[in-house]
Amino acid sequence: MSERLGPPLGAPLFDRLALIGVGLIGSSIARAARRKNLARVIAIADASAEARARAEALKLGDEVFAGAAEAAAGADFVVLCVPVGADEAVARAIAPQLKPGAIVSDVGSVKGAVLAAVAPHLPKGVALVPAHPVAGTEQSGPDAGFATLFVNRWCILTPPDGVDATAVAKVRAFWEALGANVETMDAAHHDLVLAITSHVPHLIAYNIVGTASDLEETTRSEVIKFSAGGFRDSTRIAASDPTMWRDVFLNNKDAVLEALGRFTEDLTALQRMIRRGDGDGLFALFSRTRAIRRAIVELGQETAAPDFGRPHGEDNGNGGS
Amino acid sequence: MSERLGPPLGAPLFDRLALIGVGLIGSSIARAARRKNLARVIAIADASAEARARAEALKLGDEVFAGAAEAAAGADFVVLCVPVGADEAVARAIAPQLKPGAIVSDVGSVKGAVLAAVAPHLPKGVALVPAHPVAGTEQSGPDAGFATLFVNRWCILTPPDGVDATAVAKVRAFWEALGANVETMDAAHHDLVLAITSHVPHLIAYNIVGTASDLEETTRSEVIKFSAGGFRDSTRIAASDPTMWRDVFLNNKDAVLEALGRFTEDLTALQRMIRRGDGDGLFALFSRTRAIRRAIVELGQETAAPDFGRPHGEDNGNGGS
Repeated sequence: MSERLGPPLGAPLFDRLALIGVGLIGSSIARAARRKNLARVIAIADASAEARARAEALKLGDEVFAGAAEAAAGADFVVLCVPVGADEAVARAIAPQLKPGAIVSDVGSVKGAVLAAVAPHLPKGVALVPAHPVAGTEQSGPDAGFATLFVNRWCILTPPDGVDATAVAKVRAFWEALGANVETMDAAHHDLVLAITSHVPHLIAYNIVGTASDLEETTRSEVIKFSAGGFRDSTRIAASDPTMWRDVFLNNKDAVLEALGRFTEDLTALQRMIRRGDGDGLFALFSRTRAIRRAIVELGQETAAPDFGRPHGEDNGNGGS
Repeated sequence: MSERLGPPLGAPLFDRLALIGVGLIGSSIARAARRKNLARVIAIADASAEARARAEALKLGDEVFAGAAEAAAGADFVVLCVPVGADEAVARAIAPQLKPGAIVSDVGSVKGAVLAAVAPHLPKGVALVPAHPVAGTEQSGPDAGFATLFVNRWCILTPPDGVDATAVAKVRAFWEALGANVETMDAAHHDLVLAITSHVPHLIAYNIVGTASDLEETTRSEVIKFSAGGFRDSTRIAASDPTMWRDVFLNNKDAVLEALGRFTEDLTALQRMIRRGDGDGLFALFSRTRAIRRAIVELGQETAAPDFGRPHGEDNGNGGS
């Protein structure tokens, strides 16, 4: 869980890396790419003046622009790090500036819709290799990033048929240098799997916190007070960036509705067990679910410490202080 | 979040403390009560030979028994630390051994049903002061406990009408000495609030992990692999003790079904927004939910570190190593 980023490679993998968007993900890529010397020049673009000011203060790139086109001009690797709903406009803006042989990628949590939005705008001779690093925190913005965010996390590439194999290999090498494990699959399969592992869990978390926030004031304050009973776990992912997640649900509608359908069917069955007092049915489900967490911990995708290793006081052996 | 348990008090608060059940909660009470010198003698009972062997190896109590009655005999404070479905049988078993003036309490996550199950069996002159420490981890058993589990967590007392005020004050002093903040409310209100903050979140987590575990094998292994996208958060509370949670749902049926009804209504509305592409509606909800997490962090009921402070590598400032 806590591997270090190794020393920098020899020659930079890219001459000019353009990061369009410098939020949690873009700024984490900038920090890690700098540390590993993956690009001679890092050019950053962000439409927000506040984000640009922070990017300059944090020295995240060599050049900082308001417009995506300026950052992408002459770049051999352009990574779109904006909410997926903004990808099409960015693709339109950068297309005239892309040099032949450039590689365009992204970090979006949805892949089919991104491919459809970006591919038609790219000139011939530019390779599109969409990517999704399955990593993040509930925080947003340039200050939230850190260089080891991708260490031992998965990055999924969804290269379309016929894309240049060398370009795919370079994108893979880039992510591996950031510490990620790289997997390749087709976009539709990605969108289905991520609907289950990420999109629906976020939707459910947003919903459970939303239900609580609709309670009358006195009850709501008690919900906050007694949140350590389980509720507070849901609030973490429900504090994620609203624009990013709005765009995920708008752009992966079919897979999300399908996964949500399975979830609600199962919940209805569980509700029925409670109403009928079916203790054996409840016990059977509650026993089955422990195995899944164990598998996640064994795969190194979760800390083995109880309670996520949250601090509890001086002697619980969880890293509390 | 990381206050220390202070030094032991002067004279022990109780002469003989009997803990019936030595799982995560019972063993945490034993450790903390010993450290704070809250009882001259700590007597432990557990029906499981394995748990008793661990309790002895860990020196959790001065006396360890298979039967609840033996531990409770002569005790001035008896705390039931068993799944709530077992409370009635324990109450029946200990009743003949309870001495006049003894206080009986519990740690169950449901209060109305516990009161109804236990109160009828207690002899006159014994005070019943039900308690619910809102604290825990997803782990179970004597080894999972630790003395600071209750520090800065809430403990809710639900004393029935007419119970001896001195007894309530002693139970309050006991929990305060364990580091908890103590609140008093009536059992029905407790059960409604906890249905929202604890029972339904657990049910939803069990359900989301259950839905994933029903997927065909190849997809299920991908769900485990890519769980860092949000899913793994749900798996923590879905790894909690199955017997304890079965009993919670069987014993707080009405409040759980009511809270679940609100949740599913809201989820249906959210599903409709996705189907219709209502980006503004999604954005509005996703913005509202951030405030709730902020409030929980401000109240000291959650760590302010991103990603629960999970380790991420060497430089994220989250305690990673």
